Order: sequence, then C-alpha cells, then structure tokens
Amino acid sequence: MEKLSHLDEQGRARMVDVSEKEVTSRIAVARGCIHMRPETLALILEDKIEKGDVFSVARVAGIMAAKKTSELIPMCHPLNITSVEIDLTAQTNPARVDIEALVRVSGKTGVEMEALTAVSAAGLTIYDMCKAVDREMTIGEIRLVKKSGGKSGTFIRKE
Amino acid sequence: MEKLSHLDEQGRARMVDVSEKEVTSRIAVARGCIHMRPETLALILEDKIEKGDVFSVARVAGIMAAKKTSELIPMCHPLNITSVEIDLTAQTNPARVDIEALVRVSGKTGVEMEALTAVSAAGLTIYDMCKAVDREMTIGEIRLVKKSGGKSGTFIRKE
Amino acid sequence: MEKLSHLDEQGRARMVDVSEKEVTSRIAVARGCIHMRPETLALILEDKIEKGDVFSVARVAGIMAAKKTSELIPMCHPLNITSVEIDLTAQTNPARVDIEALVRVSGKTGVEMEALTAVSAAGLTIYDMCKAVDREMTIGEIRLVKKSGGKSGTFIRKE
Amino acid sequence: MEKLSHLDEQGRARMVDVSEKEVTSRIAVARGCIHMRPETLALILEDKIEKGDVFSVARVAGIMAAKKTSELIPMCHPLNITSVEIDLTAQTNPARVDIEALVRVSGKTGVEMEALTAVSAAGLTIYDMCKAVDREMTIGEIRLVKKSGGKSGTFIRKE
Amino acid sequence: MEKLSHLDEQGRARMVDVSEKEVTSRIAVARGCIHMRPETLALILEDKIEKGDVFSVARVAGIMAAKKTSELIPMCHPLNITSVEIDLTAQTNPARVDIEALVRVSGKTGVEMEALTAVSAAGLTIYDMCKAVDREMTIGEIRLVKKSGGKSGTFIRKE
Amino acid sequence: MEKLSHLDEQGRARMVDVSEKEVTSRIAVARGCIHMRPETLALILEDKIEKGDVFSVARVAGIMAAKKTSELIPMCHPLNITSVEIDLTAQTNPARVDIEALVRVSGKTGVEMEALTAVSAAGLTIYDMCKAVDREMTIGEIRLVKKSGGKSGTFIRKE
Repeated sequence: MEKLSHLDEQGRARMVDVSEKEVTSRIAVARGCIHMRPETLALILEDKIEKGDVFSVARVAGIMAAKKTSELIPMCHPLNITSVEIDLTAQTNPARVDIEALVRVSGKTGVEMEALTAVSAAGLTIYDMCKAVDREMTIGEIRLVKKSGGKSGTFIRKE
Repeated sequence: MEKLSHLDEQGRARMVDVSEKEVTSRIAVARGCIHMRPETLALILEDKIEKGDVFSVARVAGIMAAKKTSELIPMCHPLNITSVEIDLTAQTNPARVDIEALVRVSGKTGVEMEALTAVSAAGLTIYDMCKAVDREMTIGEIRLVKKSGGKSGTFIRKE
Repeated sequence: MEKLSHLDEQGRARMVDVSEKEVTSRIAVARGCIHMRPETLALILEDKIEKGDVFSVARVAGIMAAKKTSELIPMCHPLNITSVEIDLTAQTNPARVDIEALVRVSGKTGVEMEALTAVSAAGLTIYDMCKAVDREMTIGEIRLVKKSGGKSGTFIRKE
Repeated sequence: MEKLSHLDEQGRARMVDVSEKEVTSRIAVARGCIHMRPETLALILEDKIEKGDVFSVARVAGIMAAKKTSELIPMCHPLNITSVEIDLTAQTNPARVDIEALVRVSGKTGVEMEALTAVSAAGLTIYDMCKAVDREMTIGEIRLVKKSGGKSGTFIRKE
Repeated sequence: MEKLSHLDEQGRARMVDVSEKEVTSRIAVARGCIHMRPETLALILEDKIEKGDVFSVARVAGIMAAKKTSELIPMCHPLNITSVEIDLTAQTNPARVDIEALVRVSGKTGVEMEALTAVSAAGLTIYDMCKAVDREMTIGEIRLVKKSGGKSGTFIRKE
Repeated sequence: MEKLSHLDEQGRARMVDVSEKEVTSRIAVARGCIHMRPETLALILEDKIEKGDVFSVARVAGIMAAKKTSELIPMCHPLNITSVEIDLTAQTNPARVDIEALVRVSGKTGVEMEALTAVSAAGLTIYDMCKAVDREMTIGEIRLVKKSGGKSGTFIRKE
C-alpha cells in the first residue's frame, strides 16, 4: 500500500532518510510556461532582439533558485547540483513563453524539486519584469517531464 | 507608449526606483492549484483528517517563501510584509488542491510578487511531499486575482 | 478567553496581521547561559586574555542571527532592526558564560524573537568552538527579561 | 594538552581543515525543552488535538534550521545532511515540551551543531507561537545526547 | 577624538544604534573595476554584441548582492533599498571593465555598504564567467565616490 | 579557440556541467588589500592591541562569505568547503591591510571564487567598521594567487 514518504508512522513531517542510498548521476527536466497578451510577448521580443534582458534575467533567476531549493521546500535535502540549464522559448498561438529547466547532480537523491523550482522562479521573474504592462499573465503547467538515475530508474512523462 | 519598467533606456535590467512613492497600505491576493490523481488527493486528505501535515507544511513553506521573495526575484524590492495567509482547499472534479495567498504590507511598492511566490512555494511543497506516489502532478494557473493600494488603485481579475 | 494569535479561527498557522499597528520604538532584552566544565571556561578565558576570539566570534554570530530571525522562525515578521548588542560574561560557581542580547527597532511589532535568537546563536557558537574539548556543555535558561514599546507596554521579568 | 580547535596557533578564528577526514555515516541526537505555564501547554494541546499546528510548525522550523546551521554558526562546515527528525513531547510536572532532534549525514564531519540548532529553532518557534499568552516561557537544557561515526567514535551522554 | 563607531567603550563589536536617526532620502555611488587581458575583454565584447550575457549576469549579481549586504557585512543594518542601478563600461588602455553602482534608500542609515557590495559582486561575477580564459584578472579600486542624505550631508570623492 | 565556458553555443548563461569531473582535493589562495589613511590604521591597531575586534570581525565575515559564494555568484556551483583561513596583516608604506584567504575543498570543481569572495567580504567589513573615520578607504588588487587540484593542475601567479 502506498504511503506519503515525508510523513512518519504518526503522520508527522520529517526529512526522509537517504543516508543509505547510493550516489549516482541523476538528471531531472521540468517544464512550465507563462501565458500573456500578444502585445506583452512582442515587447519582450523587441527588447530581446536588442538586448535580451528579460530572458537573461529570468535565466539567472532560475539558475539561482535551483540552488536555493532546499531553503524553500521544507523537506528537501540539500544537494550540490553540478549543472543547471534554463531554456526559454517564445511561442505564439497562444502567446506565451515556454520554460524548461535541466538539472544534474551526482548524489543520493534526485533533483526533481530543483528543476521544478527553477521553472517556477523563471516564470515569476518574467511576471515581475512585465507586470507593469500586463497583470493578467498566468504561470502554469509546471511539471516534471523526465527523471533519470537512482533506484527508481528513468521516468519520462508522456506529453 | 508602454515600456517594461525594469529595463532602463538602454534595455538593461535595474531595480526600478520607488524612493519617491508614498507609503500606503497594500494588499495582494494570488491563486493557483496543483492537479493530481484522485488517489493522491485521497491520501493527503486521510492524513489531513488525522494530522493535517501536508497542508500544514505547505502553508509554512508558502509563508516563509513570501518573506524570501526579494532574494528569489532579481528586480524585486525588499519589503517588511505585515501579514501572510495561505488557504488550501481540496477540490474534486478534477482532483486538485486550490491555493490562495493573501499578503499585506505598509510600503512604497506592492506585494504581488510575494503573493505569487507564496502560492508557487506551497504548490512545490505539496509536489515534494507527494511525489513518491504521483510524479505527474501539475502546478498551474498561478495568477494575481486582486491588488489594492498604491497609485494604480485596485485591480480585480475577472474569474 | 486567551487565544494563540498565530492560529486563525480554524487553527491553521498564519503570519498575524500587524498592518494597523503603530510604528513605535521597541526594545527587547533576552538572557541565557551555557554551562561548561571549569577547565573549558579557563581555556576560553586564557584565549580571551590573549585574543578574545571565542567571545568575539560568538558576539558576531549573535548579531548576525538577530538579522536572520524572520528566516528561522516561520511566523516572525521581517523587521529592520536598528541596534543589537551582545554581552558575554564568564561566571564561576557554576562555571558558565552568561549571554545577554539587547535589540532595538522602530517598527510595528516587537523584537523579542530577535533577542532570543541572538542569545541562542551566541550560545550555539560557543558550543561549536569549544566542543572539541567539552561535549557536555549545556545551553539553557533562554528567556525574555525585558520588553518595551508597543500597545502592551513594558514587561520586566522578575529575576 | 588540550586546545580549542577553532583557533589557530595565534588564537585567530578559522574553519578547521577537515579535508583529510574520512567520509563516514554520522548521527547526532540533541535534546532540549521549553518550560511554560500549565495553561499554555493546555492551549497547545487543545489545538494539537484539533489541528496540531504549533507542533507541526515547530517541527518544520527545526528541520529547516538544521539545513541553515552553517549559515548561523560561523566556523561550521556546510554539509549535505541526509535526514532530520524532530520529536516533540508534551510533559507535565513541570509543564513543558521536550524537544529531540536526530540528524544524519554521510560526510567528513559530524552533525552535532545541526542537531543542537534544530532543537533551538523548534524551541524558539514554540515561544514565538505562544508568546501572546505566556512571555515567561524558558528554553533550556539544550545538549548533545548522542553522537556516532567519525574517528572519535560513539558518545552517549549519561542522562 | 575619533572613535571606531562599531566598537563600544570596551572595544567589543556591536551593531551601532540608529534608532533615533531620522528617516531621510539617501543615495550612495560606488565604483571599481576589473582589469583583464585585452583578449578577454574582446571575448566579452563579442559576446556582448551578440547576446550581452556576461554584463547582463554581472548586473543581476550586483543588484541581488546589494539586497544581501546586511547578511554579508556583520555590523550592517538591514535596509529596504528602493533602487539599484549597475553600470558596466568596457575600457581599453588598460583593458578593463569599469563598474559603478548607485543605490537609493529612504531610511535611518546610509547605503554606502550596499553600493560597495554591489560593485564587488559584479566584479567577482565577471571574474567567474571569464576565469576559464584568464585567471589573472584583478578586481580593484573599489571605493565610495558619492553619498548624500543623513546628518553628515553630501560627500563627493575627488577623482 | 577559446570560449567563455559559462555561455552555451547560443551565448546564454548556464551553470556549466561538472557532473563528470573527478572529486579531487582542491586549494585556492586569493589576496587583496584595503588602503586607508595612516591614522585609520593606527586606530585599528590600537584597538587590535587591546581587543583585536576589527580584524576578528573581518575574519568571521570572510569565512562566512566563503560559505555564501554560490548564493552571490550566479553561475557558481554549491560546494561543501572543508577549510577557510583568513590572514590579515597591517602594512605601512603605504598604510593598508593585506588580506589573504585560503580555501580547501574535496570536490568536482575549484574554490577560486570562494577565496576571492572571502577576501572581498573581509575588505568590505573593514571598510564598514572604519567608515565613520575614513570614507576614502579603497579596496583593491583582489586576485587569485594560487590554485591546485583538478585537471588543469597547479597555477601560481607571479607576484
């Protein structure tokens, strides 16, 4: 029968013990997006063509947030991640920015939360930088799309 | 003509100057949700009925993340927020948890980012605590629903 | 009838709303101590006479911890504290170091938690710096001794 | 002759070199308590029976503080801890909450400071959440009760 | 006779009391530079022309570091800064990048440390991003060039 | 042909992948200095003779900043450093304090940035503690002087 692993037998929160897990190479990929008015996307892209700054700041925010994951998510283990890449792609129809984060570690536990946190922070940063012109942007579809390494093996979400 | 206020005349990122803005009472409300399998929701609710821990940890994570907003979002101003409330509601059809954050401040700039960050962190925490049983949960529809205070007045999103 | 103010009507944790409270000058003083073997105290004092480093590092740790209080205590409001002083006094009979922290702020809520956190961090730092020679040191009697400012007025603990 | 290992030959503070130490499984257990009026304990327990929130928030605070230890204690080494468990037990006669933290790591140095910091933060959080009804609570008896792993072997405090 | 204000009468470190100081508009400007081989500067500029990323990441790092100043500098007061601008200028003869930071606050104490910290972090970030091609870059001449607001009035360094 | 390793093929910032690098013992030594008026140096030294506090606080600040490096420098990998030593030396002719930091790690990537960050933070702290008597102090010549371990072997700067 399934159990929520963060809760002990009495249902109290704890950071689950990964001491005995093996150190393996682990990768996680997460995706999400931020929907916006076409005019907002156009403003970003015009600036992007000139300076690229909205995307550049969002990428930095995503990378730095990945490193802060265990400070934000209470039961998350601290990990020395070895790589983060953030991919931002402007999409029309509907107007949005697609966000993908890939995180790698050589450790005892996976980096799903780091990848999901990086996507969230990149989306929030785009919101912050554009909110003066569009308050109704919506961040969504934040999900794990791939995970490899560790005892549970490879997971690939059907998209 | 509209401008992205975080970019100066040369398109470079900066933290916009709010020195001359008035200190007023400001409120922001944001919402989002995390979709999951009905079985996952049932597990949370059973634990919730007994101990309530998943929701309790997610609320703490949301409140603490609101206080960390200016560390996560590069161009965000540090603010001494005066109140945070996180509301989590289990919903069936489709199975999900609805997340709402209300943040208050008495300051020179608004707390939209704090409310959106709190919602994101609460959603990520629910994902973390339940991921052992459901990797395909999706966090979404993170949006500002209300904002009051400051020169731009009250904004209420049509829902 | 008394209520725990951090819990709302349904018993859920929240950061209590202090938006409507007045900005006043507030002071809090906390005390605690760390008990140790007389030989350990002698070692600190000998170094203190020459270089004073154990006490100096503990004072810095206490001051920096006071600034981190709202990151450590989940329901604590962030505050721009305006002063911290840490007083460390070697005591014999029994051998111990007495720790006192005084914190000041001009704000909407008090600094009791900042003073108590500063005392705790100073004590933990003394433990850390001396644990190679004495594992059985005990930190104790951490308490609020004075508080002034705000609607509830002045509190002085009978010692 | 004994030396304070955090001070070099000239008595200056430094983070001691653990580069050549072996990576081993290490565990530390610390305990402490917070004394309070019986009425305060009763209020916590009544809420606990319904929602358990004071204990739940204190547990989360203790777990998150363990992860922050090297940010708080100046000479502490950063470590990727692999497990934290916080145990809170209401005690009458005298009225108090007993706090125990167990921390595990696979690393080059021990986790005593992480366990002691977790106990302190849990105690401070209980103080914070109950201070509106009881300012005279006292946090005390924070001590290391067990330590295993590493060259110095197992330590068990006689209690 | 002059005194170091961070040391009390007994020479111990403390965070000096600014409770009674007036809230005024304060500005600080700091400058510094990073010297490098002309080939390194050329590489940055070529990338800059295309994507601008080294300068863009360094600007974000400087802005975020300004917000972290009171966490880094032990006796610094936490402040809600209201604006940060980072200016990076490539210079030849000798090959270097000039760094300027302007920080504003409405507060009880100045923002010199925030401006100096922002300059330092921007310089360190340029070093980090270019160190694979040039280990001998040197960060230097970090200095306060202007300060206004507060009781001590305006200071302008003769350059 | 040389490349800036932090930029991918499209010139976008990323945290470079070190997953496949070997764990080796790595050391980095960085140096810098802070120039000041002779009277300022005399004040520090007089206090130093009595209490040593300016140097003591600066050493603690440098050690703690080394641990914060990956939070400050966006593309830096988090690392569990195993040792930090800060050396401060008063120099006359011209009046200044020389700063040296030595950092060790057993890891997949080097600690140059940690050593450089420690030097910067120690210098900024000296500035902060003395700025009331000397606003024109200048922090400079921050540079890597030695690096060993890892595939690229030993680097020693000609001084």
